[in-house]
Amino acid sequence: MKHVFIFHCLLLVALSGFGQRRALVFQTDFGLKDGAVAEMKGVVYGLSADIPMFDITHEIPAYNIWEAAYRLQQTAPYWPEGTVFVSVVDPGVGSERKSVVLKTRTGHFFVTPDNGTLTLVARQLGIAEVREIDEAVNRRKNSGASYTFHGRDVYAYTGGKLAAGKITFEQVGRRLPDTVVSISFQQPVIAGDTLKGNIPVLDAQYGNVWTNIDQHTFAKLQVKPGDQLQVVIRNADQVVFSGVMPYVNTFAAVQEGKELLYLNSLLNVSFAVNMGDFAARYHVKSGPAWTVTVVRQ
Amino acid sequence: MKHVFIFHCLLLVALSGFGQRRALVFQTDFGLKDGAVAEMKGVVYGLSADIPMFDITHEIPAYNIWEAAYRLQQTAPYWPEGTVFVSVVDPGVGSERKSVVLKTRTGHFFVTPDNGTLTLVARQLGIAEVREIDEAVNRRKNSGASYTFHGRDVYAYTGGKLAAGKITFEQVGRRLPDTVVSISFQQPVIAGDTLKGNIPVLDAQYGNVWTNIDQHTFAKLQVKPGDQLQVVIRNADQVVFSGVMPYVNTFAAVQEGKELLYLNSLLNVSFAVNMGDFAARYHVKSGPAWTVTVVRQ
Amino acid sequence: MKHVFIFHCLLLVALSGFGQRRALVFQTDFGLKDGAVAEMKGVVYGLSADIPMFDITHEIPAYNIWEAAYRLQQTAPYWPEGTVFVSVVDPGVGSERKSVVLKTRTGHFFVTPDNGTLTLVARQLGIAEVREIDEAVNRRKNSGASYTFHGRDVYAYTGGKLAAGKITFEQVGRRLPDTVVSISFQQPVIAGDTLKGNIPVLDAQYGNVWTNIDQHTFAKLQVKPGDQLQVVIRNADQVVFSGVMPYVNTFAAVQEGKELLYLNSLLNVSFAVNMGDFAARYHVKSGPAWTVTVVRQ
Repeated sequence: MKHVFIFHCLLLVALSGFGQRRALVFQTDFGLKDGAVAEMKGVVYGLSADIPMFDITHEIPAYNIWEAAYRLQQTAPYWPEGTVFVSVVDPGVGSERKSVVLKTRTGHFFVTPDNGTLTLVARQLGIAEVREIDEAVNRRKNSGASYTFHGRDVYAYTGGKLAAGKITFEQVGRRLPDTVVSISFQQPVIAGDTLKGNIPVLDAQYGNVWTNIDQHTFAKLQVKPGDQLQVVIRNADQVVFSGVMPYVNTFAAVQEGKELLYLNSLLNVSFAVNMGDFAARYHVKSGPAWTVTVVRQ
Repeated sequence: MKHVFIFHCLLLVALSGFGQRRALVFQTDFGLKDGAVAEMKGVVYGLSADIPMFDITHEIPAYNIWEAAYRLQQTAPYWPEGTVFVSVVDPGVGSERKSVVLKTRTGHFFVTPDNGTLTLVARQLGIAEVREIDEAVNRRKNSGASYTFHGRDVYAYTGGKLAAGKITFEQVGRRLPDTVVSISFQQPVIAGDTLKGNIPVLDAQYGNVWTNIDQHTFAKLQVKPGDQLQVVIRNADQVVFSGVMPYVNTFAAVQEGKELLYLNSLLNVSFAVNMGDFAARYHVKSGPAWTVTVVRQ
Repeated sequence: MKHVFIFHCLLLVALSGFGQRRALVFQTDFGLKDGAVAEMKGVVYGLSADIPMFDITHEIPAYNIWEAAYRLQQTAPYWPEGTVFVSVVDPGVGSERKSVVLKTRTGHFFVTPDNGTLTLVARQLGIAEVREIDEAVNRRKNSGASYTFHGRDVYAYTGGKLAAGKITFEQVGRRLPDTVVSISFQQPVIAGDTLKGNIPVLDAQYGNVWTNIDQHTFAKLQVKPGDQLQVVIRNADQVVFSGVMPYVNTFAAVQEGKELLYLNSLLNVSFAVNMGDFAARYHVKSGPAWTVTVVRQ
């Protein structure tokens, strides 16, 4: 019977392994027209057939580290503890930027070049530890002659080993100081009746304009649905849009074609046109130079 | 031994659970450039690591409920009984449209705003039951302050619970009457030697023109491969194309650049140019206003 | 106890099945805007819920068999032995091209029309056996009336059965001679100090130009990082680009906006502009008519 018992234990371990496996979530600026993403997934699948693989997007604009940082911040909180993110937007491939894995205080892992990609998740989820990938052990075998596809040979490979439990976080490599390379950007602030913030990205599919002004900062303005707000959008010093619109809980609260201020799915202040495209109508774009002020009327 | 027996039963239940799990299939108009779809999948993965997730498309044109309805009808029959579809094309988010789950007579589940998206699958697969999602229980925890991402907090969350077997269909919410919101459209009809129908969508990748005239209606015309047919395509009252082409079983049956009538993968009457783009050449589009007549020569 | 033992064996078989399952990897020119790919995946999922499904790309330019061949060659080596690839770029659907499964010497399987798609993997991975799909048994039930979606009814269906272990490779159909339909193309050659090759594809996302000149042929030129090379690119007889650039291991080794020669992720000779788009700047495209010469300075 002892034999049988041990057997059961092994089976249970095997079964519970299915439940505890970590998802691997990819993000790149590679696009999906060629085979680069499939090469990465093939390498991971070769490490273990049991790693669930998903994608945030592979349509990050080429070399746009800021947008990579934003998409990680947007999506990571909705994935469970233990999820491994592999983000490869790497204009400095082959240069001196470090290859790292960030473990956040929330227990998420981010495998990426440390080039600013971690700016927002480090701030949002907190830094537990940063480790540098030791390429002597965590690099795909026989990939030494290629200096240009770290995405496959270092980042996907290390992320796959971590997700499969083939290495521990400690085995990624040596511990670095608890800091990451950060891109500076306009913080959300309130002064009197005026909110100020940045436009990190557009909601490109619909043309909605998203800001980094979170619900808690917005709450300090003490407005309620239906209240009118003065909104000014600037690109550096140039005023691009100026107008008054209501704060609403639902697009349908204003007529078709009318502007509105709402909290988006991240609960950040955003601007939209009901059944229309705010960004296209007013030529609004996003990035560090774009700022917004919101004033209670 | 009784102990061992119970143990085995539990193991078998666990194992059989893998076999019986339901796939979750997404469709939205969100595009894949931002993180919205990844947020939805993260929420589902957080409910259970064992739900196989797939996508129809996230490139439904923004707010185009009709095309959402069409894509569900096109694909659902090829998925097994028990598959859970989550479709989010929701121009009326926050308005009074109901959030529902349709169970069809074929045993498929559709989680969606009831805004016309179910028009075609309800007709094609039959309504078994419609239930309204009870947001008091089937809404992601702590999502109350957001009024704008029902896709993640209500539809993906409810679909994920249903696919994982964490709720039964009955636990979705109260039963509604056996009907769904439907978009009116031109039915396929035959009168004498003339077929009439609608162009619901284009086969955009190749420029083929698909109609809603099914094989059974077409069979009443009693034509065989090689027979010539007069085809007229109208946008409302305006004739956009008029010409004669053969009914063929294979594109290669006509010369390159020539028009042909064939039954597409849904076995509906369609028009193509061999190695060419019918829709672009003749400026044909799709939607409720587009009709087609086919006359036996 | 004998009972218990048999029970355990069955459980182990079930468990080991998870580990040994083969991945199914799709490639088509269908795009992702309609439901065609989801129909294929639904059919496979209906065969078995345990087949891991992945995608190379569905954005192969319509009818471009050459690019389909290239993407298979690019990605297949990174997937483990036993992986089943289903590639459907099929301008001759319904004509006399054969439907086949190629087993390579590396143990990969390729399910596809034999129309040139196998040109490069046959050469690269070696032909072990070619079998013709016997549609009498390896075609989806009740799909006989449709002559146009072999992708779903023959290729995905056969690939799914093979990946799930429901048929052996021998049960695909009768064995054919050990050859595949091949597209002729310029081989990489060296004569004195001059390399010559073809531009099979562009790295479209970044505008880098990839050649088919492999690292071993390149090595014969005996250059080292930093050495200058004369590069001439021709479309048929017309010179499209002529210039001198260094061979480097990293884009960052040249200034922004400068040209460079590097080995891409396939370890083939390629050309790029650091932080720029080589192909767009010099109007370089790809295909059989495009050749390149590289001369040591």
